[in-house]
Amino acid sequence: MIDDVVFVSNKTNIMTTIELASYQIHVGNIWGELENWLQAQSYSRYIILVDENTRAYCWPLLQQKVNLPNPQIIEIRSGEQHKNIHTCTYIWKQLMDEKADRNALFINLGGGVIGDMGGFCAATYKRGIDFIQIPTTLLAQVDSSIGGKLGIDFGDVKNSVGLFTNPQKVFISPEFLETLPEREIRSGLAEIVKHSLIADSELWQKLQSIHQLNAVDWASLLVPSLEVKKRVVESDPLEKSWRKTLNFGHTIGHALESWALATPQPLLHGEAVAAGMLCETYLSGTVSGLDRHEVEAISDFILRIYNKQRFDPASFPTLIELMKNDKKNQDGQINFTMLQAIGTPLINQSCTDQDIEQSLTYYLER
Amino acid sequence: MIDDVVFVSNKTNIMTTIELASYQIHVGNIWGELENWLQAQSYSRYIILVDENTRAYCWPLLQQKVNLPNPQIIEIRSGEQHKNIHTCTYIWKQLMDEKADRNALFINLGGGVIGDMGGFCAATYKRGIDFIQIPTTLLAQVDSSIGGKLGIDFGDVKNSVGLFTNPQKVFISPEFLETLPEREIRSGLAEIVKHSLIADSELWQKLQSIHQLNAVDWASLLVPSLEVKKRVVESDPLEKSWRKTLNFGHTIGHALESWALATPQPLLHGEAVAAGMLCETYLSGTVSGLDRHEVEAISDFILRIYNKQRFDPASFPTLIELMKNDKKNQDGQINFTMLQAIGTPLINQSCTDQDIEQSLTYYLER
Repeated sequence: MIDDVVFVSNKTNIMTTIELASYQIHVGNIWGELENWLQAQSYSRYIILVDENTRAYCWPLLQQKVNLPNPQIIEIRSGEQHKNIHTCTYIWKQLMDEKADRNALFINLGGGVIGDMGGFCAATYKRGIDFIQIPTTLLAQVDSSIGGKLGIDFGDVKNSVGLFTNPQKVFISPEFLETLPEREIRSGLAEIVKHSLIADSELWQKLQSIHQLNAVDWASLLVPSLEVKKRVVESDPLEKSWRKTLNFGHTIGHALESWALATPQPLLHGEAVAAGMLCETYLSGTVSGLDRHEVEAISDFILRIYNKQRFDPASFPTLIELMKNDKKNQDGQINFTMLQAIGTPLINQSCTDQDIEQSLTYYLER
Repeated sequence: MIDDVVFVSNKTNIMTTIELASYQIHVGNIWGELENWLQAQSYSRYIILVDENTRAYCWPLLQQKVNLPNPQIIEIRSGEQHKNIHTCTYIWKQLMDEKADRNALFINLGGGVIGDMGGFCAATYKRGIDFIQIPTTLLAQVDSSIGGKLGIDFGDVKNSVGLFTNPQKVFISPEFLETLPEREIRSGLAEIVKHSLIADSELWQKLQSIHQLNAVDWASLLVPSLEVKKRVVESDPLEKSWRKTLNFGHTIGHALESWALATPQPLLHGEAVAAGMLCETYLSGTVSGLDRHEVEAISDFILRIYNKQRFDPASFPTLIELMKNDKKNQDGQINFTMLQAIGTPLINQSCTDQDIEQSLTYYLER
């Protein structure tokens, strides 16, 4: 595994714009574009949603780079456990107390929780006010900031209340990554790996050259990775079919993530997904015809980047039970996305419980 | 004023379909259409939202007319005071407990509260499941069932959390009106009167022939009234401009409704709107050139149908203060929709506080 290092992003003056059907994602040196865009609008005020971390580490940068007169800051506590209806009630109440009108702009400055929940509150305040996403974690930059999924956890089920609404724009600056712990960067990288495996073998080749996370030019990986997600979500915005390709690694990954929550070492989402991808790569070899050499190459790469997670074979039945509760299943059958080849996914795949156990054993023994 | 009578709707075998851009409204004898449509879908289950009244008076009719196997009933308490986030939490929890999946159909059987709040819960459960509206009050049939506005009251402000989402279909049966108190019918009629005044002078003429509410063929009034609302909301779905014509009578009406809430005799929405329309008709004569004979004709008609509401001139300042808090105002100026002529509205009109006081005095002294 790559040694932990202090992460330093590459500063660049380049900005790339990804055009989606109804909005744009700007990646790289976003500040001029953001300033110009704000100037061209006529928002009555700016509301910035932060948590204690993004208030301390990201808000100063945003404030320094862009003119936001009389900003109204709404601060919530960081963490998935606060992504719930109580926090929404707090956010709506702040908006009401400050008499934010329909012409206000809501700015989500943070990771996935801020983007998902802040977007949900903005999209439902007075039947919807404009919002933009300024994701500050690698995971949010590459994944949750695109696709229009907004929402909160409800009754112990992740993202079970929410809706699809697109932001006005998404602004992605790798500068924010400088404030992130190495472990968060590694976690976010897992979704880039996934995007390469399901749809971009060229990106996959590029990823092979990663040896030190502090030497990575993130903008150059974010753009092709976002292009993959864009193609997938635009072909199936409401997740009726092809969008399920994005679930690669997530069926076993989500089970590991839930399982680890109850242990002294909870996993970050990307850490769980990395382990899940390795298991589902093995399954793809067993049931979907993925070439043995590709199985090996993917396994090698993942274990070079990620610590192996430890769990006991005694936990296999619990893990399989968790997979059976996945909201994407139908008729009680666990629904997998697998690989036929690198870059070629297959949706709606199934296998036996024994196959799943073998994949978990493969992971532990590899 | 017309004497109170027991209301009996006209049963008819005719069904009229109003085509909107993305869905249809069926009015009249809807049962065959509803049954056929349900048969043609493949919903995994049916969830019916009711309150204690519609469970007792409307659900038996629906159940008798249409085959809905294994219905899941969610019952909430009737009344605007329950249109809040707590009731939403209860509804979402019921859906989760019953493991309703994304392929369930949510059926709103009730008045405006059921339609607005049930639609909001359906549109946000698992990022949105299909729902249909079966409005059972005249007010909901003619008004809130069309236009896609969904939501709840929050922090003492009506409809301040919500969104725009269209139902799969709306089914309007005048048979449900048979279960309504006379006062509710009279209240609903106010929105039909409004639709005629802002956009359909022919419908206005037709309304002149109403002398007994129990002799009215409601389907024949609902259809042209819905056609008016359809034209308005389709020309401006997000209420940026022309949709404001629907606010005629509502600026003063909402103030009277809020004011009366704190008195021993709260007003129904339509009762307040009827009084508001009379005042705003007078204002239209003062500031927007509405012909004096039309002012008189509208005043005569409203006072023939509706009891005059009693309030003291001492409450005028309170009423004007309430108008100034209206969410549709801009720059502290009260925003009125007025009439230039019957069928010809003017949006974004303003007047002096003295004009408003005169209109209230006119109402009281007429």
